[in-house]
Amino acid sequence: MKLRSIPSDDGFCMPAEFSPHRATVIIFPERPGSWGYGAEPAQAVFAEIIRHIAEEERVYVIVSDKTEKKAEALFGGYDNVILLNIPTDDSWARDVAPTFVTDGRDVRGIDWQFNAWGGSYDGLYAHWENDNALAEKFCGLAGYECYDAQHFVLEGGSVHSDGEGTLMVTESCLLSRGRNPQLTKEQIERNLCSYLGGKKVLWLPRGIYNDETNEHVDNVCAFIRPGEVVLAWTDDENDPQYPLSKADLDYLESVTDAKGRKIKVHKLPIPDVPVTITEHDLAGYTFEEGEDEREVGERLAASYVNFYFTNGSILLPQFGGVNKASDERAVRIMQELCPDRRIIPIDAREIIIGGGNIHCITQQIPAAGRNASRSDE
Amino acid sequence: MKLRSIPSDDGFCMPAEFSPHRATVIIFPERPGSWGYGAEPAQAVFAEIIRHIAEEERVYVIVSDKTEKKAEALFGGYDNVILLNIPTDDSWARDVAPTFVTDGRDVRGIDWQFNAWGGSYDGLYAHWENDNALAEKFCGLAGYECYDAQHFVLEGGSVHSDGEGTLMVTESCLLSRGRNPQLTKEQIERNLCSYLGGKKVLWLPRGIYNDETNEHVDNVCAFIRPGEVVLAWTDDENDPQYPLSKADLDYLESVTDAKGRKIKVHKLPIPDVPVTITEHDLAGYTFEEGEDEREVGERLAASYVNFYFTNGSILLPQFGGVNKASDERAVRIMQELCPDRRIIPIDAREIIIGGGNIHCITQQIPAAGRNASRSDE
Repeated sequence: MKLRSIPSDDGFCMPAEFSPHRATVIIFPERPGSWGYGAEPAQAVFAEIIRHIAEEERVYVIVSDKTEKKAEALFGGYDNVILLNIPTDDSWARDVAPTFVTDGRDVRGIDWQFNAWGGSYDGLYAHWENDNALAEKFCGLAGYECYDAQHFVLEGGSVHSDGEGTLMVTESCLLSRGRNPQLTKEQIERNLCSYLGGKKVLWLPRGIYNDETNEHVDNVCAFIRPGEVVLAWTDDENDPQYPLSKADLDYLESVTDAKGRKIKVHKLPIPDVPVTITEHDLAGYTFEEGEDEREVGERLAASYVNFYFTNGSILLPQFGGVNKASDERAVRIMQELCPDRRIIPIDAREIIIGGGNIHCITQQIPAAGRNASRSDE
Repeated sequence: MKLRSIPSDDGFCMPAEFSPHRATVIIFPERPGSWGYGAEPAQAVFAEIIRHIAEEERVYVIVSDKTEKKAEALFGGYDNVILLNIPTDDSWARDVAPTFVTDGRDVRGIDWQFNAWGGSYDGLYAHWENDNALAEKFCGLAGYECYDAQHFVLEGGSVHSDGEGTLMVTESCLLSRGRNPQLTKEQIERNLCSYLGGKKVLWLPRGIYNDETNEHVDNVCAFIRPGEVVLAWTDDENDPQYPLSKADLDYLESVTDAKGRKIKVHKLPIPDVPVTITEHDLAGYTFEEGEDEREVGERLAASYVNFYFTNGSILLPQFGGVNKASDERAVRIMQELCPDRRIIPIDAREIIIGGGNIHCITQQIPAAGRNASRSDE
C-alpha cells in the first residue's frame, strides 16, 4: 500500500547526503550494453565500493537470478551486506532506488516515476519497467513505507538537498522535454519542495558536457555542508565544459540559499585530459535494440564531483593513466575541504564507461533525524 | 639455459623494495583450499590491488587455463597489465616468483627451490611442482636471465634487503627443519649474501604468532629506508605475539647493519582484536588430500607490516569490522613514516584467510640500478 499523502505535509524531508546514514543501496551490475566483458570489470569495482561502504554502514545490494550466486560468494562474509533479489534494467541506484525522507523518527521512501532519462523522447534504453518498479519493491522488502510520486518523473541524481531547506537541480535536466513537459518550472519546483521538504530550489543552468542524463546536478555540483558546494571546473576557456561551469558559477554567485546565506563555491577541476571510450571498451559491449550506443573516442562525462559520502569517508572517483596528476589534485582538494573524512580514491574508469560514476550507483538511506548519531539506530 | 654462476660474483644484488620498480608479478588466485567461494572474493581484491599497482608500474598477472578468460575481461583495458599463462599451485608470488637482482644495467631472476614452506616435514600442501617451476618459466616468458639456486630452499617472503648490503630474515623460518636442515646457519648466511649481494644478515628470532610459513620476516618487520624498520608490535604482554615481537625488538636494538648503523625501529601495532577464521570462511573452502586445513576460530597471522611498496604508494592491509580503529592507526603511522607516498588502504580480509597478505601476493622487479629513476627504463 503506497502512501498517497505528501511527505512535507507529514513532516518528512530529505536530509543531506553528508548527514548520518542508516544504509546504502547499490545494484550489482550486469547489463551487457553498459558493462562490457561480462560485467566482470564493473563487478570488481562495485565490489570494492561495497566493501568500503560496508565498513561504515549497512549495504543493500540488489541482485538478479543471474548475479545472485556470485554476489553471495563475494559478500557472504560481510554481515553488513544484505542481498535482495529484485529485477532491474541497469545499475543506477541513485536514479531508480527510492529517495528517502525522514521526520526525525521514521524513514520513508519516495517512488518517483523513472523513464530511463527521457522516455521515448531521449531516453537511453527502450525498456525501463523493472527500474521504474524497483523503488516500491525495495521499500516492501526492506520494510519502509513508500510515498507514491509516480505522477512526477525524477531521478535521484537530478536533485541534491543541503538538509536545511535548500534543494539544487539543473535546468537542463529538470526542464528537459523527456521528463515532465506538461509542468511549468514553478510546478516542478512545488513538487520538489513538497516531496523533499525544501523551501528553496537552486536552479543551476547546466551540468557536465556530454552527460547523457541531460546533465544531472550530481555530476557537476554537490553540497559539502550547508551553504558550501564543490563545482566541477576547468580554467581552459576552449574546453566545452567551460561555458557550462561558468554559467553555474555565475548563477551560484548571484543567489542565496533557503537560509539566506550566500553560497561558498569551491572549484573542483575536471580531469586535465578528456576521458574517452577506447576500442577495447567498445568491443566489450553488447547493445540491445533501442539502446543508446557508444562510439570510440566519445568523450565521457568524467567529473570528480560524482563522489559519495559514507558515514566516515568520501569515495572519490579516479580516472588513472594520463590523469594521475588530476586524480591526486582532486584527492588533495577534497581532503582539505573535508578534513574529518577519509578520502578513499576509487579507480572509477570501469564505472564511467557505463555512463555514470560512484554517486550514480549509490543511494543513501538516512538515519532517522538530521541530527541522529552516526551509529545505526 | 639457467645461469650457474653466483649473482654477487657477477656484480648483481637485490635492491630494496622501496627502490624504483620496473614491474610487479602477481598470480591470479583460484586454489579452492586457499580461496573460498569459487575464489570470487579473493579475485575481486586481487583485481583491486592489480588496478592500483598498474597506476604506477607494469603488472605481470600469472593466469591459468581456468582463470585466463576472466583475467582478460578484468584487465584487457589496462595497457600496463600483461597476462602470462603459467600453471601454479597457488597464488603467493612473493614466495614462488623469482627474486630479482640487478647490476645497475641488467635485471636477472633467481630460481630458488620452493617446497611449500617445509616440504614433507611441515609443508602446507602435498604438490608444489608447478610453483617450484614458476620462477624459471616466468623468466623465460618475460625475458629475464635466470640464476639457478635450486640447491637452496628459500621463499621470497623470508628475506628482506635494504639495498645497501643488509639482509633481514627470521631464525624460526630459515633454520626450520623443513627448509635446508643440512646447512649450518653460517652456510645459509653465505648463500643469502652471495645470491642477494648482502654483506650482513640480521637474524630476527621470530615472526608473527601462528604464521604458517614458519614466521616469514615479511609479516613481522620491513625496511622503510636503510637503517629504519617497522616492527609488528603489541603492548599487551598477555598476547601470544608479545614475546615474539619483544624478542625481535631486543635483537634489533642490539645490532648494527652492514653500514654500521644502529637500526631505528618503529612499532606498528597489530590489530587490537585477533582476526580469526569464521564459519562462513570455512564453509567456502574445498581442501584436497595432504593440504593443511583450517578451523573456525583459528587465529590468523594478521599484521599491517605485510604491506607492499609500489613506485608511488604503499598498499596497506586493513582488517575491517572491529579493527577499524586499528586499521586507521596503521594508516596514520605509515603516512607519518612515509610522507612522500600515498597510503592506499586495502580491505585484506579475503587475502589473510588464504594465509598471507598483500606483500605475500606481490613480487617486485626492480628497475635496473638502485638509483634508477622511477620511470620505466
